[in-house]
Parts: sequence; C-alpha cells; structure tokens
Amino acid sequence: MASNIGKNVRIQVFGQSHSAAIGVTIDGIPAGKRIDTDELQAFLDRRAPGRLPWVTPRKEADRVEFLSGLVDGVTCGAPIGAVIANTNTRSSDYARLDRVPRPGHADYVAREKYHGAQDFAGGGHFSGRLTAPLCVAGGIALQLLREEGVRIGAHLARAACIDDACYPLQGITADMLDAAKGKDMPVLDDAAGQAMAQAILAAREACDSVGGVVECAAIGVPVGLGDPMFDGVENVIAKYCFGIPAVKGIEFGVGFEAADLAGSVNNDAYRFENGKVRFESNNAGGALGGISTGEPVVFRLAFKPTPSISGVQHSVNLDTGQNEDLSVRGRHDPCVAVRAVPVVEAVCALALYDMMLESRMR
Amino acid sequence: MASNIGKNVRIQVFGQSHSAAIGVTIDGIPAGKRIDTDELQAFLDRRAPGRLPWVTPRKEADRVEFLSGLVDGVTCGAPIGAVIANTNTRSSDYARLDRVPRPGHADYVAREKYHGAQDFAGGGHFSGRLTAPLCVAGGIALQLLREEGVRIGAHLARAACIDDACYPLQGITADMLDAAKGKDMPVLDDAAGQAMAQAILAAREACDSVGGVVECAAIGVPVGLGDPMFDGVENVIAKYCFGIPAVKGIEFGVGFEAADLAGSVNNDAYRFENGKVRFESNNAGGALGGISTGEPVVFRLAFKPTPSISGVQHSVNLDTGQNEDLSVRGRHDPCVAVRAVPVVEAVCALALYDMMLESRMR
Amino acid sequence: MASNIGKNVRIQVFGQSHSAAIGVTIDGIPAGKRIDTDELQAFLDRRAPGRLPWVTPRKEADRVEFLSGLVDGVTCGAPIGAVIANTNTRSSDYARLDRVPRPGHADYVAREKYHGAQDFAGGGHFSGRLTAPLCVAGGIALQLLREEGVRIGAHLARAACIDDACYPLQGITADMLDAAKGKDMPVLDDAAGQAMAQAILAAREACDSVGGVVECAAIGVPVGLGDPMFDGVENVIAKYCFGIPAVKGIEFGVGFEAADLAGSVNNDAYRFENGKVRFESNNAGGALGGISTGEPVVFRLAFKPTPSISGVQHSVNLDTGQNEDLSVRGRHDPCVAVRAVPVVEAVCALALYDMMLESRMR
Amino acid sequence: MASNIGKNVRIQVFGQSHSAAIGVTIDGIPAGKRIDTDELQAFLDRRAPGRLPWVTPRKEADRVEFLSGLVDGVTCGAPIGAVIANTNTRSSDYARLDRVPRPGHADYVAREKYHGAQDFAGGGHFSGRLTAPLCVAGGIALQLLREEGVRIGAHLARAACIDDACYPLQGITADMLDAAKGKDMPVLDDAAGQAMAQAILAAREACDSVGGVVECAAIGVPVGLGDPMFDGVENVIAKYCFGIPAVKGIEFGVGFEAADLAGSVNNDAYRFENGKVRFESNNAGGALGGISTGEPVVFRLAFKPTPSISGVQHSVNLDTGQNEDLSVRGRHDPCVAVRAVPVVEAVCALALYDMMLESRMR
Repeated sequence: MASNIGKNVRIQVFGQSHSAAIGVTIDGIPAGKRIDTDELQAFLDRRAPGRLPWVTPRKEADRVEFLSGLVDGVTCGAPIGAVIANTNTRSSDYARLDRVPRPGHADYVAREKYHGAQDFAGGGHFSGRLTAPLCVAGGIALQLLREEGVRIGAHLARAACIDDACYPLQGITADMLDAAKGKDMPVLDDAAGQAMAQAILAAREACDSVGGVVECAAIGVPVGLGDPMFDGVENVIAKYCFGIPAVKGIEFGVGFEAADLAGSVNNDAYRFENGKVRFESNNAGGALGGISTGEPVVFRLAFKPTPSISGVQHSVNLDTGQNEDLSVRGRHDPCVAVRAVPVVEAVCALALYDMMLESRMR
Repeated sequence: MASNIGKNVRIQVFGQSHSAAIGVTIDGIPAGKRIDTDELQAFLDRRAPGRLPWVTPRKEADRVEFLSGLVDGVTCGAPIGAVIANTNTRSSDYARLDRVPRPGHADYVAREKYHGAQDFAGGGHFSGRLTAPLCVAGGIALQLLREEGVRIGAHLARAACIDDACYPLQGITADMLDAAKGKDMPVLDDAAGQAMAQAILAAREACDSVGGVVECAAIGVPVGLGDPMFDGVENVIAKYCFGIPAVKGIEFGVGFEAADLAGSVNNDAYRFENGKVRFESNNAGGALGGISTGEPVVFRLAFKPTPSISGVQHSVNLDTGQNEDLSVRGRHDPCVAVRAVPVVEAVCALALYDMMLESRMR
Repeated sequence: MASNIGKNVRIQVFGQSHSAAIGVTIDGIPAGKRIDTDELQAFLDRRAPGRLPWVTPRKEADRVEFLSGLVDGVTCGAPIGAVIANTNTRSSDYARLDRVPRPGHADYVAREKYHGAQDFAGGGHFSGRLTAPLCVAGGIALQLLREEGVRIGAHLARAACIDDACYPLQGITADMLDAAKGKDMPVLDDAAGQAMAQAILAAREACDSVGGVVECAAIGVPVGLGDPMFDGVENVIAKYCFGIPAVKGIEFGVGFEAADLAGSVNNDAYRFENGKVRFESNNAGGALGGISTGEPVVFRLAFKPTPSISGVQHSVNLDTGQNEDLSVRGRHDPCVAVRAVPVVEAVCALALYDMMLESRMR
Repeated sequence: MASNIGKNVRIQVFGQSHSAAIGVTIDGIPAGKRIDTDELQAFLDRRAPGRLPWVTPRKEADRVEFLSGLVDGVTCGAPIGAVIANTNTRSSDYARLDRVPRPGHADYVAREKYHGAQDFAGGGHFSGRLTAPLCVAGGIALQLLREEGVRIGAHLARAACIDDACYPLQGITADMLDAAKGKDMPVLDDAAGQAMAQAILAAREACDSVGGVVECAAIGVPVGLGDPMFDGVENVIAKYCFGIPAVKGIEFGVGFEAADLAGSVNNDAYRFENGKVRFESNNAGGALGGISTGEPVVFRLAFKPTPSISGVQHSVNLDTGQNEDLSVRGRHDPCVAVRAVPVVEAVCALALYDMMLESRMR
C-alpha cells in the first residue's frame, strides 16, 4: 500500500479496523508549535461513531494518545507518533467476508492484489475507521493553519438527493465555516438536515443506503500557494481527497458546471478595490493555473452510498466457485458522507499546510 | 514549480510558450522497449494546432526530437530527453499582459507568486502548449501499455452544452476507444460533433468561448493496480489530470451521480461467468478502494471555457493601479477541451503505466 | 526532521529517548510474507543495552509490539506499525543539558535549529535509542532478503585502534557473516575482541570513550540492483548509513585505499568459470557504476567515539552566556560502534531490499 | 535508472556519451534569481577536457544552451532545461565493448541489468561526460549559495599517493577555497601538483592509471541545515557524491580517523567568543546529528583509478563465451579525480542549496 502522503509534512497512516491500534506518524511539522490536544480530541469526536440518530450506541472512545513529537504540548521537531486503540471489535461479523466479497467494497480486489493475505476483518486497512488517524494529522494542520489566518469548514451539501444550502463562492465568513460543526447533521440549513436524516433513516429501514456530497471551503489562503503543473492546488487537494474511502469525484469552484459556461461568464474578472486587486467572482474556486488566488478555495466531493447494506445482493463464493447472495451485517452508517465531513476538512488542511510551507522557500 | 510527477516513471516537463524549446525528460522506463517514433509523432499531431475549422493555419510543426534514451528506437535504460522547438512565436501579442492580467488565466497569480519574474510571454509555462511534451511522455506510455494489453481512448463528451454519445461503463471495445481518434472533432457521434463545431464557431464569432467535458476509458487494466490510501487509481489519475490546464473537476464511473444513488443500485454485484468472477455493472468506473477491478477505468474531466476571449473584460493595470478593460488577442482555441482529448489519453497512460510497474514488486 | 526513507519500502522512525514510546511504520512490504517475530526480537536483543561488560544492568526490555500490518504473523499489505515502550527513563540525568550543550552531541545545533523547542531529554530524537526501531524495520528486511538468498553480516572491524580480522572481499560464506552474531564483542577474532573490550573499559575508567569501524557484507546479491546515477548501490546504502548516529565515513570495497592503487591493480578483471562470468577480484565491493555485480557488497563505516564522556570538557551555558565546564553523567556506552553492529546490518538490509523490489519493474 | 535527485530543487540528468546531446532539467529554483551564464560557462570549462598536459586536444566545446527557465538571464520560476551538444564522438573506439566488458566499468553489469539494450557507446549514461550537466545545475547552485554567503571550493588532495596540502578544518577563507580554481592541476600546493602531474603522466606511459582524493569545503553555511535522521547534512551530500562516477568512499571532518580518536580529543568543545558560541575545533566537519554547525562543512571523496587503461587486462567475450584479453583504446584521463574537482563543488552546492531552501519552512 501507500498510505503515506505529503512533501513537507509527511504523514503515514497505519492500522486495520481490527488490529491492536490505528495511528499516524507525522514528520516535518516545524518545531515550537503548540498543539491544543483537547481541541484536537474535540475535532476527532466530530467524526466518532455513536452519536448519529441511526447508530446503535458504541463505546469506542477514539482517544488519541501521542507517543512522541510533543513536549508539554509543543512540537519539538521530532516526528509525531499518535495511536488510537481498537477496543470494540466484533470480528465475527466479518467471518464470511473473506470468501464472499461485499459488492462495492475492496474485498475482492484486495484478495486478488494481496493474494489472499489481506486483512479482511472489518475491512482491514480499507475501513472508514482509518479516517480517524487522518483526522489526527489534519486536526493538527487545522490548528497550524488557523495561526496563519486560514480557516476551513465543510458541510454535507447533499444527501439522498436533498440539497443543503451552499457556501457562496465569495464572501465566506468564519462563522459560515463553523455553522455545521458540532451538529448531528453537519449542514447549514437544519430543515434540509432533518429531511436528509429522515431519508437516511428510511434508506436504512429499507436495508439500503444513500450517497452524498460534501462541500469544503478554506478562507484566508494567501495568493500564491501551489506549484504547477503537478503540485498545484487542485492536484494536491485531489490526491489527498481520493484517500478518503467512497469518494468518486471532485470539482473546484463551479466545477463541472464550468464546462457549460461561456468564457465571458466563467472568467473571474479583476477590479481594484481600495487599492487592492479584487476578483469580481470566484468561479475558479480559489485556484488559477494551480496557484491559489486569495479567494476562498472551494471544492465538492461526491461520496458513493455506503456499500455495506443489509439488503440481499448478488455475490460469489470465491472458495466454492458458486454464486452466493449476501446480506451484509455489522454496524454501518447508511450514509458515509455524514461522518466524512470533518475528514474532508482534515485532508484539506493537510494539503494546504503542506503548500503553505512550500511557499516559504524563496 | 513542480512540473515533475511519477514514482516509477518520472517525468519532468519544461519549457515556456515562447522559450527556445519545450520538452520532457522521462526516467525509469525499462530498457529494451521499442518505441515507434512515427506512431508517437502521429499521436502528437492529434493535439497539434492548425487543423481545426476555427483555427488560422499555423506552421508550428511540433516535431519531437529525441536527444537521449533511445538507441535505434529502443529504450536503453537511460533517461529519455525529448524536445520540441518553438518556432512560431508572436510575443508582441502578449506585450501588455504582464501588467494587465487576463481574467481566467494565471497571469495575476503568477506575478504574485514569482514576484514579477514569471515569463508572461504566451502564458509562459502555463501555456496549453506545455501539453505537447506531456503527450510525448504519454504517447510512449500508451505504446508500452498496449504491449501489456491495455488500450486507452478519450472523446469530447460534451461541449457548448451539447452531448456526445458516451462510452458504456462495461463492454468497451478497442474500436470504441479508437472511434474518435483522427477526427477533427474527436467525438463518437459525428452529428453531435458537427453541432458542437457550429456552437464553438458561433462562440468565437461572438468573441467568446465554451467549456467541455472529456471522457476517457482504459480497457485491459488488470485487477490489482493502485496502492491505497494515497496512490490508489483515482488519487494518481486525478493528480496527473489536474496538470492539464483548464481542468476543474474529475469523476470516476458514475461519479457525482453516485451521490444520488442508493447503495443497492450503485453497488457493482458479482457473479461467476465461465468460472471467472464478473462484475454485473461498473458504476465504480474500474476502481474499488483505490484498486483496479479489471473493469474499464472510466473518468470524465470538466474543462472550463478558454479564458482568452476577444470580448471586452474587466481587468486591472497592475502598474498604474487603475482599472482597465481588456480584449485578449492572439490565436486561441475557443474550446480547449477539443485539443485536450489526446492529452487526457496521455496522462491516463502515464498514471496507469506507473501503477502497472509498481504492481510488479511482490 | 526527516526520519523517513525508502522508495518502495518506506519507513518512518518516530520517538524520543524519553517519550512514551519509540517506533516505526513500514509501508510497501509485499503481502503474504511470514515474519518470524521471535527471530526479530532476538535480532533486536543483539543491540539491546544491559549485556556488555561495562554496562550497569538495565531493565529496559525493548520488546517490540506490532500494532498493525501483520495478521497471524503474515504481512497483509497494510502498513506495519511497531512500537517499543520507553520504560526506564531517568530524565534528571539530563536536566542541565538544555542549556549546557554536550560537546560532540546535537544539543547546541538542535537548540538553534528548533529554536529551543527540541526535546533535550536523553538526546531526544538524536538518541542512539532510535536505532531500535531501525532494527525492527531492518530485521524484517533481513528475513525477507534471506528468502531471496541474500545474507548479511557485520562485525566490529576496529575499536580503540585494535583491528579485528576482516571479511575477505571474495568468497564470503554465510558462516563468516554469522560469526560475530551473538557475541558480547561482535568480532571475528575473539582475541582481538578481548583486547578491544579491555581498551574500551580502560577508556571508560579514564572518563573517556573510543571510536570504531564496523564492516558489513552482503552475499547472494544478484547482479543488477541499484539505479544510477543517484539511486545506485552506494548512494542508497550511504544515505541509510548516515542515519545511524556517530557515523562519519563510509567506503565500499577497498574504499579509500583505491585512491592509492593503479588501475591495473584496482580493476576487477573477468574470467569465465564453468561457463559463468566471474570476477577475479572484488576491489569494487560489489558495485560498478552504481549497479551490483553479484560479488559481495562490502562496506565499512567510521564511528566517532561516544561524545558523552564523564571527563571534564569545555562548554557554554547558553542561558547565562558564560563558559562552563561539563562532565556528562548518565549511562553511556564508551564505544557506540559495538552496539551499532546489528544496526548496520539492519540499514544494509533495508537499502538492498528496496533496490531488490525496484529491480522487479521491467 | 534514477538520474534524478533533490527534494526542493529537483534535477534530472539525461544523455549518453554519444547521444545527440546531454543535459539537465532543474525544477524548484525560486523565481527572480539572476544567473550569470558567462560565469557558469567558465565553471563548466573547469571540467572540460582538452587542457590537461596528458590530453590530446579535443574540440568538444561543451557550450551549455538554455532552452527554458530563464528570461533575460533571470529565473522565471519555470523549470530550467539546459543541453550540451555532443559533437565529437568516435564510436568506433567502442565497437567491441558491448561484448568484451572493460574491467572496472559498468559494461558487464549494465548488459545484465538492461538485458543488452544499454547504450554501450562511450560508456552510455555511465560516462564521466554526464558530469557536465551536473556542473550546469551545480554551477547555478553555487551562484545562488554565494548570494546567501556560502562559498565552496575543492582541490585534489591526493593523487598517485602524493598529498596536496589540506584545508584546515577551521578558519577556511574564501581565498583558500579559490586557490585551486583555474589551475591545470587543481591543488593548493603547486609543487605537489607538479609531482602529481608527473606521476600521472608516468602511469599513462605505463599504460596504467591512478586514483585520487578530492577534498571539498563549504564556508558560511548557517547553523541548522539538514534534517535528521535521513536528510541530514552527511546523508544528503553522500547521496549526491556517489552519483559521481568512480567515487568509492566519503568521510566528513576527521572522518575515518575519528574511529581512532578518544572522545576527549574528537569532541568539538564550546567557548563563548565575543558573545557568540564558538567551536574550539571542527573534527565533526561541520555537522552534528545531521545538522550543520556553522563551522566549515569539510569532506573527502575517494576516487578509484580510471578503469580504462591501455594495458592488457583479463576479460571475457560475452558472445563467444571465451576468455579474451582487452586493451582499452580511446581518450581517457589517467586520473579521473583531476577533472572531478569542480564536479564535487557542484554536487556539494546542490546538496547544500536544497537543504537551505528546506530550512526556510518554519
């Protein structure tokens, strides 16, 4: 695998759903940065299971423990090692999955790629649980970026075909970015959130699941981050984002809609305002030619519906060579996009912070 | 900048629109591979200017010259160096652009990032012209992949709000992939292509431009390419694709539509067929958990409309500090997506070939 | 810092001398490889403190715990996470070192580089203790290489100006490579070892320390590993080796002596022997042009004397701005080269295994 | 191959001895830096053939041509592409070498590694000629470092068992660093240089060759460069240096001699001097724990004797399977270390400049 990423801040995620622990190492963070570990834990709690209306309460605490890299809460220059214990595993739920692969999951391709040696329990390293260490690293990057004046937020922009309100492409405030944080349904418009929750519950009762879209924005990003052609803002953010399980698409600014616009409409024109160059619009989503424009970086991610559904699906028994139907048991979110919201903030922060460090090298 | 990419096959693109030459170095291709340089030149010609209905004929030959790495047309293990001379430059077209940035272009952000030292002539390193060396590298990868049974094709799936036919997600044949190649309008459905051409011409006459969508597919990709979490199929392809100027979004398989589907619909179920595991659908677009499934890898890229339009736009004079209107002169395609089609094939090939080499390391 | 290395097998070392734990993550090892964890622990024990004649017995167990990446002792393709708890720390020994830097240590430069935020306790991340996780990763590589027919050994070739016997440059056997393993003084010639031990003890009693040379050899290395110009056999091994604290030089084959030889003497000529190409000598130490020759890879590392000595040395008080003399307390080996022997085997294995995987990409 | 190196300034060397051209791409140099191309050419001329007493005059001009990355002599942020034409090739000298490998060269191992597809003409990519593009990149780094107050010099410290004077480890001046530059024999002590020249000529007349040692020093290096454990000063410099053909060893400061010293002697003690911390010695050669100390960075490289000698040597005919003797024809320096002196300065500069950029990322 290659669960490592980053040029300047290099993270390595490790662990499987049912291994002794999951964790992350983080190398390259400058020394002397105070990390608020309580705030970090609170950030982690935003993605923790156990709180959503459709979830059986779990006791998984997801407490992060720092093994190294911090001295009295301050980065010392040495690599950070952080682990989260796996305490609440029910491997029996997965006993059959090594031979009857779940549609929509990596079970079958992992068996082929790793010649049967893959850890199938709980989805192994493919489990959504591995987004917790991503949030540890990203939560640190969020704190470091805030010191630099960069704020990041995300929300569930769509689920079960129901739209939340959207961030505007210009004029996004820190309050807007914080609006969805701390809510069970991380949306801007609570009425939409309630409708989504009902639709998700209904899908669950129908032994099914639904997909969604997460929108993320970063404000305060200085002009000039990103290195074209291949370490530009979009390249780097996209590479991180596709590390989140279930992401199938990403678009920046007006995104796919740009393909339908005329140049005269899509171009973000310039005007002076109080002696400073201002963009009249931000259809580009904060990046031109791979370089940040100073406008909000805005992007949307498509999340496919949770593949694990209790409804009966076609599958195969790889041992017997016979077709076999499957109904997936276990505790699964019927809409992975909901809990993915802080994860998207996390990877956005990691990408931007890496580019920010890069930009210091003049 | 960071115009280099690749883990196993490492390419470095260099050159500016009006520098002496543009080119690419390619390191890591195994020795002993015969490269058909005529076929490569023919591939390059597919993206060359001068052929499209709306283009003033240019004499830019875009002949690639290999400086190193090939002995009698066979890779010798040493890095390949290839250059294309820049012969037909009209820098006077760009004389004003260093101080009056073109909306939708990198002019302004590049000036900020590079403190005024950027090469503004012809867009410098941001020019679409830099996709020619990308096609040199990608054209080689296409040949190497074909030896391994992998075929790649792309087409202009949409332009000016007009849809071409689509590749099916399953059952794509080599003929389908070749269908758009060699056409002035690289589409599957020529009637759609004609309508697009008319709409593009109309936009040009209106001093405007249009966007488009390019769809790309690869068949024959073996099960097991890609390394999660961050070098998975989607991560890697996305990182390459955002290196193509004007790309603002990417989606795999059903893509953003997956966000609207139920899990029971989106999941690609399994069945045995003649003793082999087969997917009943390919909504995933050929990748699960970052790993190729053996089904066609299918993705779509959103291209924004050409930013350079002759219509009058708001801009600013960065030297005088005054607002100033701008009408961009020069020879610009009114729809960059058209000529981007072979470029998309090129980067898809580079991404897949790198992953294919990676998969040999057991 | 940058405590990560490796192209195909990527390791990240983390931890400080007095942090909660030290450890390593290892990504990129092929799936399905059985790791003998008992053998690995035995390998770790070879570098553990507490056994050498001049050492006060310590209770530091240095038990490695695998958090992830192994399922029933077999690699599953997911990154390996391994930790060793730090149980026996005596930070009071180091209370003064943040302001009075120890000559020969990184105390002063780390304070400058990390602006006072470095972890000075026990030397922080600079501690020789961080070679334990290196040995975890390298011990795994040693097992994997043995499966491929590669054997590695090292010995203390010189200490306190006393020479051990040397490996021959050709005809090294597995027995020779194992000869020093398991000995308190890891030498080939026990008489020399005894003399070294006495000299080291004498240095210790004189409140001083001594340096040494470690020689390492690998046999069974196939022809063709290493990628010139910068990932050649010597480049890669050297980059790993300078990660071991106290290494100040490296030489391959006859090394610096080659500078004094005539070409006619130094060149390793060829002859056919039983239908196979054989080298008549191995002055090159197993690499030509950065590529392995099939002959033993042989190199020597210079280790400086342990900087921590109890004798009085000149230093400065960085807080008061006054000169201050220093006598370093704490439990320090008077010759770091002794316990470095298995560490050298470890990094040699990591370097060669990475190159071996690379060589599969044809 | 892997003829690319660098984290922040990434270079890719390409070309073979007898290909159309050799060259280098350089990505990551900050924009706005003026490069003196005349000075660069003068630097290149220091390694050019044709000037040394034992060399038949050649007409190879080694003129570097910049294809991209510079606008009016100033870096524009885009990658630099530079080529040097190969004009004076005599491939007939090498006609037999594809089947009768030259001892001490990469001929045989390259044939094995690249399965016969390697470019054997003139040594292909293994030719010392490939150090010319290294000098292009390094010559630029030397200019950039000088702006930062860093000066680098090297000299032939030993050849044919004759010693030049040495740089002192402390108190090196810019004049000392420049002392050997521009001399036919790049030494500090001209009497030694004359003796070396005679010994080299004598070796040549005896159809033989000799080895040598190059010493390099950098002054003005700020405290704090280098990132332990694996991107420390020594790791990085060593990785670059082993990219120079014929290098077989490297040592820093007192180097291998440190292995014979007592800690009390080897440790570089501290004293305050005019309110600043000063080292009382520089046995470490400018790096502790992988981090630069502010003292001169001093290292020595062992160069093996030129493998190409006209004396008769044992070899094999790989086509016939018979032993065959070989006398190498062609124009070869009888001591590669002589012309390697500026190359060592070049790679030292590349290594230090990369680390200097890295150090800006706080």
